Amino acid sequence: MSMKPGTDVSVIIVAGGSGTRMGSDIPKQFLLLGGRPVLMHTIERFAFVLREADIIVVLPEKEIACWRSLCEEYCFQVSCRIVAGGSTRFESVKKGLEIVEPGCKWIAVHDGVRPLVSENLILRCIKEVTEYGAVIPVVEVTDSLREIDGESSRIVPRERYRQVQTPQIFDAEILKKAYGCPYKESFTDDASVVESIGVPIHLTLGERLNIKITTPEDLKLVKLLI
Amino acid sequence: MSMKPGTDVSVIIVAGGSGTRMGSDIPKQFLLLGGRPVLMHTIERFAFVLREADIIVVLPEKEIACWRSLCEEYCFQVSCRIVAGGSTRFESVKKGLEIVEPGCKWIAVHDGVRPLVSENLILRCIKEVTEYGAVIPVVEVTDSLREIDGESSRIVPRERYRQVQTPQIFDAEILKKAYGCPYKESFTDDASVVESIGVPIHLTLGERLNIKITTPEDLKLVKLLI
Repeated sequence: MSMKPGTDVSVIIVAGGSGTRMGSDIPKQFLLLGGRPVLMHTIERFAFVLREADIIVVLPEKEIACWRSLCEEYCFQVSCRIVAGGSTRFESVKKGLEIVEPGCKWIAVHDGVRPLVSENLILRCIKEVTEYGAVIPVVEVTDSLREIDGESSRIVPRERYRQVQTPQIFDAEILKKAYGCPYKESFTDDASVVESIGVPIHLTLGERLNIKITTPEDLKLVKLLI
Repeated sequence: MSMKPGTDVSVIIVAGGSGTRMGSDIPKQFLLLGGRPVLMHTIERFAFVLREADIIVVLPEKEIACWRSLCEEYCFQVSCRIVAGGSTRFESVKKGLEIVEPGCKWIAVHDGVRPLVSENLILRCIKEVTEYGAVIPVVEVTDSLREIDGESSRIVPRERYRQVQTPQIFDAEILKKAYGCPYKESFTDDASVVESIGVPIHLTLGERLNIKITTPEDLKLVKLLI
């Protein structure tokens, strides 16, 4: 990375979630955290750490007008580009990739609802991607883990599993090539898309507090932590 | 369950962890939370919800003296019995089972370092065990999940997995019979022991905030929540 942090980096922030599991009509990314929408916190973290990065926010088409009015209401002036997403996460990231600048060397993909990502974690992923080409943060599973099979379930050895977080950071050419392939159901994150073209994924240590806001309990936790 | 909550119930609270992953010499269960050791909070939750229950606390032999002096220091007067554990969680639960009263119908096993377990969850597990004989609380995995295989790893479908919590509650005869079998490495919780004798496990919805304190970040979270 150059002396100006983020010069060769694009950050695609995917904010496509609905409010259904939150028991709310408001999309998760617009829920308030410390008085401002979750998504603003997330964008600011990256803008603060990678000052020169090109930040691309992918939102469902029908939410873009709402986002623009929120930006006015909260005087949100961090520079970022907005693009309309697709019907799946895969489609949404693909839409973000379409507007990445040609000179971009590294692309980070991050969940819009992970506002607690730390400077430390972002910088470590950026550093390691230059060596490995594909880096994702993971944490150990501390609870026991069971696999469901229809009506029954069985214990699996939890030490063999890792929970995957974002930012997931890739060599730009690798990520673009991977997203050129047809969609498969097994694509649940960017690493799974990239490894489908045979690129090995480097795992780095994530952070337990890099919480993804999925349920009201998660939001409660993040509110306490912010 | 009878009108007096907990009459037929024994609660085995397993507190065998060391402080290694906490970066501390103090065992996790004795770390302070709101000014008092974690384990006191956990015991109180059960004593409050199941007033008539027989509470058995399993501690490493070398920590029993320390626990007794902590109880004096903090004027901790909740009635519970202490027993020395073994070298594995399996051995420790077994030691607890040895002193369960003969009239006990239901046995709950709970992690000493899950102090946020709610009244609601305890009562639901107790209610459902009378129907199913073996009940454990589980939550969905919200992050993507990877399985590690030597140097490589692969994505697995997270919707097929559940994170397992405690309390795990069982028909007393079933649990005693299961713990009569020889130890296997696959026994990572009580449900895995019970299902080894062919008893199906009923899954009930756990709580995301029923956090197991394993790392300093977990303790930080729980401190904010208490």
